[in-house]
Amino acid sequence: MDDYEKGMSACFDAAKTWMAIPAPKRGEIVRQIGDALRAKLHHLGRLLSLEMGKILPEGIGEVQEIIDMCDYAVGLSRQLNGSIIPSERPNHMMMEVWNPLGVVGVITAFNFPCAVLGWNACIALVCGNCVVWKGAPTTPLITIAMTKIVASVFEKNNLPSAIFTAFCGGAEIGQAIALDTRIPLVSFTGSTKVGQMVQQQVSARFGKCLLELSGNNAIIVMDDADIPLAVRSVLFAAVGTAGQRCTTCRRLLLHESIYQTFLDQLVEVYKQVRIGDPMEKGTLLGPLHTTASKESFLKGIQNIRSQGGKILLGGSAIESEGNFVQPTIVEISPAAPVVREELFGPVLYAMKFQTLKEAIEINNSVPQGLSSSIFTRKPDAIFKWIGPHGSDCGIVNVNIPTNGAEIGGAFGGEKATGGGREAGSDSWKQYMRRATCTINYGSELPLAQGINFG
Amino acid sequence: MDDYEKGMSACFDAAKTWMAIPAPKRGEIVRQIGDALRAKLHHLGRLLSLEMGKILPEGIGEVQEIIDMCDYAVGLSRQLNGSIIPSERPNHMMMEVWNPLGVVGVITAFNFPCAVLGWNACIALVCGNCVVWKGAPTTPLITIAMTKIVASVFEKNNLPSAIFTAFCGGAEIGQAIALDTRIPLVSFTGSTKVGQMVQQQVSARFGKCLLELSGNNAIIVMDDADIPLAVRSVLFAAVGTAGQRCTTCRRLLLHESIYQTFLDQLVEVYKQVRIGDPMEKGTLLGPLHTTASKESFLKGIQNIRSQGGKILLGGSAIESEGNFVQPTIVEISPAAPVVREELFGPVLYAMKFQTLKEAIEINNSVPQGLSSSIFTRKPDAIFKWIGPHGSDCGIVNVNIPTNGAEIGGAFGGEKATGGGREAGSDSWKQYMRRATCTINYGSELPLAQGINFG
Amino acid sequence: MDDYEKGMSACFDAAKTWMAIPAPKRGEIVRQIGDALRAKLHHLGRLLSLEMGKILPEGIGEVQEIIDMCDYAVGLSRQLNGSIIPSERPNHMMMEVWNPLGVVGVITAFNFPCAVLGWNACIALVCGNCVVWKGAPTTPLITIAMTKIVASVFEKNNLPSAIFTAFCGGAEIGQAIALDTRIPLVSFTGSTKVGQMVQQQVSARFGKCLLELSGNNAIIVMDDADIPLAVRSVLFAAVGTAGQRCTTCRRLLLHESIYQTFLDQLVEVYKQVRIGDPMEKGTLLGPLHTTASKESFLKGIQNIRSQGGKILLGGSAIESEGNFVQPTIVEISPAAPVVREELFGPVLYAMKFQTLKEAIEINNSVPQGLSSSIFTRKPDAIFKWIGPHGSDCGIVNVNIPTNGAEIGGAFGGEKATGGGREAGSDSWKQYMRRATCTINYGSELPLAQGINFG
Amino acid sequence: MDDYEKGMSACFDAAKTWMAIPAPKRGEIVRQIGDALRAKLHHLGRLLSLEMGKILPEGIGEVQEIIDMCDYAVGLSRQLNGSIIPSERPNHMMMEVWNPLGVVGVITAFNFPCAVLGWNACIALVCGNCVVWKGAPTTPLITIAMTKIVASVFEKNNLPSAIFTAFCGGAEIGQAIALDTRIPLVSFTGSTKVGQMVQQQVSARFGKCLLELSGNNAIIVMDDADIPLAVRSVLFAAVGTAGQRCTTCRRLLLHESIYQTFLDQLVEVYKQVRIGDPMEKGTLLGPLHTTASKESFLKGIQNIRSQGGKILLGGSAIESEGNFVQPTIVEISPAAPVVREELFGPVLYAMKFQTLKEAIEINNSVPQGLSSSIFTRKPDAIFKWIGPHGSDCGIVNVNIPTNGAEIGGAFGGEKATGGGREAGSDSWKQYMRRATCTINYGSELPLAQGINFG
Repeated sequence: MDDYEKGMSACFDAAKTWMAIPAPKRGEIVRQIGDALRAKLHHLGRLLSLEMGKILPEGIGEVQEIIDMCDYAVGLSRQLNGSIIPSERPNHMMMEVWNPLGVVGVITAFNFPCAVLGWNACIALVCGNCVVWKGAPTTPLITIAMTKIVASVFEKNNLPSAIFTAFCGGAEIGQAIALDTRIPLVSFTGSTKVGQMVQQQVSARFGKCLLELSGNNAIIVMDDADIPLAVRSVLFAAVGTAGQRCTTCRRLLLHESIYQTFLDQLVEVYKQVRIGDPMEKGTLLGPLHTTASKESFLKGIQNIRSQGGKILLGGSAIESEGNFVQPTIVEISPAAPVVREELFGPVLYAMKFQTLKEAIEINNSVPQGLSSSIFTRKPDAIFKWIGPHGSDCGIVNVNIPTNGAEIGGAFGGEKATGGGREAGSDSWKQYMRRATCTINYGSELPLAQGINFG
Repeated sequence: MDDYEKGMSACFDAAKTWMAIPAPKRGEIVRQIGDALRAKLHHLGRLLSLEMGKILPEGIGEVQEIIDMCDYAVGLSRQLNGSIIPSERPNHMMMEVWNPLGVVGVITAFNFPCAVLGWNACIALVCGNCVVWKGAPTTPLITIAMTKIVASVFEKNNLPSAIFTAFCGGAEIGQAIALDTRIPLVSFTGSTKVGQMVQQQVSARFGKCLLELSGNNAIIVMDDADIPLAVRSVLFAAVGTAGQRCTTCRRLLLHESIYQTFLDQLVEVYKQVRIGDPMEKGTLLGPLHTTASKESFLKGIQNIRSQGGKILLGGSAIESEGNFVQPTIVEISPAAPVVREELFGPVLYAMKFQTLKEAIEINNSVPQGLSSSIFTRKPDAIFKWIGPHGSDCGIVNVNIPTNGAEIGGAFGGEKATGGGREAGSDSWKQYMRRATCTINYGSELPLAQGINFG
Repeated sequence: MDDYEKGMSACFDAAKTWMAIPAPKRGEIVRQIGDALRAKLHHLGRLLSLEMGKILPEGIGEVQEIIDMCDYAVGLSRQLNGSIIPSERPNHMMMEVWNPLGVVGVITAFNFPCAVLGWNACIALVCGNCVVWKGAPTTPLITIAMTKIVASVFEKNNLPSAIFTAFCGGAEIGQAIALDTRIPLVSFTGSTKVGQMVQQQVSARFGKCLLELSGNNAIIVMDDADIPLAVRSVLFAAVGTAGQRCTTCRRLLLHESIYQTFLDQLVEVYKQVRIGDPMEKGTLLGPLHTTASKESFLKGIQNIRSQGGKILLGGSAIESEGNFVQPTIVEISPAAPVVREELFGPVLYAMKFQTLKEAIEINNSVPQGLSSSIFTRKPDAIFKWIGPHGSDCGIVNVNIPTNGAEIGGAFGGEKATGGGREAGSDSWKQYMRRATCTINYGSELPLAQGINFG
Repeated sequence: MDDYEKGMSACFDAAKTWMAIPAPKRGEIVRQIGDALRAKLHHLGRLLSLEMGKILPEGIGEVQEIIDMCDYAVGLSRQLNGSIIPSERPNHMMMEVWNPLGVVGVITAFNFPCAVLGWNACIALVCGNCVVWKGAPTTPLITIAMTKIVASVFEKNNLPSAIFTAFCGGAEIGQAIALDTRIPLVSFTGSTKVGQMVQQQVSARFGKCLLELSGNNAIIVMDDADIPLAVRSVLFAAVGTAGQRCTTCRRLLLHESIYQTFLDQLVEVYKQVRIGDPMEKGTLLGPLHTTASKESFLKGIQNIRSQGGKILLGGSAIESEGNFVQPTIVEISPAAPVVREELFGPVLYAMKFQTLKEAIEINNSVPQGLSSSIFTRKPDAIFKWIGPHGSDCGIVNVNIPTNGAEIGGAFGGEKATGGGREAGSDSWKQYMRRATCTINYGSELPLAQGINFG
């Protein structure tokens, strides 16, 4: 914790320098960071794949995402626009001005060390904030590699590398960040349980949180869906990253009329999934991240069985070195308690419904509210799904999987998912302090609402 | 609490109806509410003055503010715009869609029963939410009067009046709202202490809060200031509403070169303040709201004295019927603990500074971060004050008082003030659920970040 | 023309007063105008119906539209927002500020005297401009009635009624407005031919135009369309307002597979259209506006015949008092020259197509680019239609008619329709002057793009 | 002109391909263009300096500007946002969608071949348009160099290089572009006279223009100004680029109280201006661009003398190889006709004023309306200057010169300057076609404004 204080203190010092640099100049630094990462795209992708366990195309895709975020943030550095709002008083100018917060804490999880860092840090940096990053304790190499690359850019520009300060440690570092009054915003990605603790600690000291917590994401397949498209999507959504995305599809809601056909096709496709070394071409399913993940998977399967779930496929660990488990499809009632929880692995719960209304109710019936998809070709179903009586999630897709978000939109979810929004749209506003400024440049003192005082 | 459940249940039922009505039609209803209030502007202003104790021009001004909010919300009902964001995938459309939350809880304080209601309810209603309002237990007449007027408009339009459901009760109703899982957003105005409790309760059930908590607002007077303008402003800011605004000026930071002159003039003006019946023409200072307020004032004065504060003027209650106290000016060190707290009455702490930098440090040194003003005519001071190294408050004024906000901007503060933003700007987004929607209307499944899966 | 100079001179004088009034206060005046019109909604609707010839529900609907515009403009008066844009230079503030133009000329046509006035005048007024209105010479009563109502509001507020100055005259007034250097913006609604003349005159003196010119609007009906919905829509779009809307459907593109069925049903519905006194309940088709309109209709029919058009229904004037003509359906080739022109009456050209691509090509093949609709339930068709390879019009609808726009969106068309946009969205920007302001509040002179000079 | 047709035809063909590529992918291409230019920054800067005649730091600065535009456009490619606007009709979705125009013509002038290209082409490209560029006939090397670099990027990405098509020719190419119906938007930079001709031709075929025409820019120096800052600014603004910027300061309005002092200091600084080889370190003033420019300068000086102007300094050509002229300061009355015209060289008209009001009147009294600056430290003067009664220009600066705009704001001017806006802010909207789309996904046909038809 001496390290924490030392690092944090340098970071806090650097904040005054960094926030005084004009935003477009900060953007230029972030552009250089993007270029430095781009130069090492494949190396970083391989490292990510090696350390986290995701397959190589996903590893490279994830590094691409932080590069995309850099490119995006460069443009944004000239568009962090405040407003000039018409004042009701003569000779008054009313403005909404955005200023940096100072230091932003970013606590990421093992499954997306680069992408989630990118969503937060690229935006936070152009907004004028220093970044304190705590990567997952199980992905230290990525933390170190990223940090070195970023530091080299700051140094080349004669800026303190403490503008971006990283820690590899565990819960004690997270704890320190949550309690540190010098950090007005903490962006936390992880479980709902830990996220809520963080929020209570941060808000007790009047700080703010940006939470990306558990998901429990459903795909609805309507009777008129493009079945092959839906099958491919469910495969990617449920098996991709070994089911360890927050946007992994965990619940599959099938219209009764296509229920059996769909499951038959899905089982067929699942059987062809190549399991193995994530670095190897052709592999679709690598190992779970840790032994603990595997144990949690096995315990989850037990719970499923005890709650009446019927394993259609998979359901076991694979005897081999590494934490490999079988991609698993389960038939289960939406009412089973296990369905309300996030089991972080390639386990998919299949359920049947009769009407769109019913499907939406099931979709919305869990505590989490991250991502959701429908497969249909009916405009009325599409627009109902995205409307006031539709999905209650932060991500509401149509004819694409629950996962695989683009950076231009805001990423995040409602309810137990924590309500944060990161990456695109106006997410940047969360990393700045909004001030409503009224300047009187006249010599009179008219009052709002026409009040006459004295 | 049976009443609560009955009211709340009707409100929750009404939510489905209300959110299905197109936003511009909801705007038309809010327009009618505005007209109904306008027709009773003076009656309501008098009632407010009578019940709350603020002087009549302020009472009428406050009712005007909710009317202004209605007018504003009507226009807004056609501008609750989502976005269409360019997708990186062919044949995909990415959108950001805004949907109603359902029911919004609004807990207001005694000092601004109408205005704060207006900031929240007018916006919440056009956004498609029902409103559950808990007014202060000490202003039941206003609660009843407002509710009746609003209900009559809904009824005239054959809509359930439960769309706007009000309660007059005390803490037990506030508690019920905080715990009610049917209420995804609770807007709370009150003390920091209670606000934090509310936040912890609401976030424990995955709800959101919009907090408007304590202020501790400073006015800085620079050596080049327009002194008469500043004196008038401080008077309005410190004595207006008997010092019972969240934006009341509590700290007066004077440049040493004008310190004595300014205080002399201010004392002169304070002496002319007419204290008395708030309904009477010419009165500037009415009574405090309750006996408890008066006691708290007296206790505050004691603390001030014990911490080395020197009472320049006032400092006593007035012997008379009603909770009248003297407008009070105190000389005190910024380091005195009492200066960090909000004393809800007409007490002003005067302090001396030498440089703008020092003044800003004092301004930012308290836990609260609501409002702040500087009086100066130097552009460099003005722009520093509103920039990254300036005031850390949500409201940052120049040459106007700390109080008297217009509705077009966002109202609210940082740090212990709670971070909420109400009324204008994009405050409406807090009353809606944001969904990032991606629609694939093609037959292929390209993945973001160019990932190739399977 | 003495009258013109006198009126215009008073208007120009009033401009300095009006633009100095804060925008929200101007909004309050516009709110009162809305209320004054609302109080006379039915009287004005009847007058409109009487003078212009449209049926009563349409007359009332049109007056409702200017009232809606007033309500909308009130909210807008607090949202005419400029921007604060991050500067790349330290101690610099860059802003985009919007200021009034001064005086805006509004030249409207006989068919929508109130609505088009509302789109322009309500926005222009809150933006801080005075308005010079020239109504159609054939609708003087409406011009006078509107002007009196508006004037009374200004007078009640002790403001010069010349802020809104109206003329009933003909081309000579239009000419004077086009040439008047005191009028930086002329909004013109009328034919493409006259509109282009106006534009050349206005731009020769460095003024700007906002043009709403001819339309030639198509409805495409796909093989999967909801036929009854499409039939009703075509009826309203082609026969409503006796075909005298700029958004009237003039071309009906039917997929070959439903071509005959659709036409049969349409003919059936057309036969039931009640023609007669527009004030009478049940009438759907009133007279054309003038004898000249009727003659133009008859000449159009002649051209149609001579170019190979086959009259399926109608095609004649009706023997009676008033300028009544039959609602007419014509089968014709898209290549016939007459199809490229706007015939201002209830004449519909039916054509056949085989593919969506072909239908879009026909839709886009005319000089005009105002409105267009498709009837289909396929998402891919819908999104193609509204995408880069779809309709080239300013209004691109799906499953609704070409006419009947809401005020929240921007109204206007491309190509020979003139490119103007009125009513909602960011149309207000056209009524203001944009200034990019950079304020240096430091004492250094850093240059953009890092240039070093001297 | 065969070349034109061949080039244009390839470009028009390429348009269908380019507009079908998702905007963020187009952004990635523009990013690569930026990188390719960055790799050659110094070479291109030297070439520009050599061919155009501007000093090397300005040459490099100008190339930096197109690179900045590329970086900016990359971010923008994910933010070309349309809107979803609340519909007043149930089961309807209203949207504002932006689609590419197809092909955009860009006609640039000799003085800013790269920067103005960048403002237009970078934005046009990410918006989905192909670009037809006509550079100045006197800067063919830059045209060729830029085109080759851009083409190489397209080719590396297997895209047709005709997406960016350039011509080196003269007026006949400009003419062809103006008349070409395949080019819906022509961006023209040049004289007011030619610009107006282009506009009339383009609008006669229903195309649109984006005009950046003559400037006649004033700097106002108030009595309280920071004189050294103002002197340096005037020097850069009047002498920089040898007075051949559209934003060059041509009129210097001095408060009578500082008139003589200011002029004395300015003359002193002018005398130290090093004239010579623009490539040489230390040179501040290079030659005029062509012999014709020099002749125009000399003819201008004659006119000045004949209209009563008094040459304080300079006023002659310099005897040497190259088109060198002396930096010139003239005392002249604001009423002299020559003051209303743009003389494209380093000639500065000095004038005297007594009040801010008078200074603003002089500023606004010329036909052009591009740029303007005030030097003052009074907030009331600053805010008046940028407000409704202030400068009527598109660029309104405070304490910085008239020239040297940043790309984040919109660049352009009012009145005879043509009204176009390029580079930042929402300038991108001009390069796209706006469509107001309403989708009915229900089965009913409610009409706007509550109309009942049939």
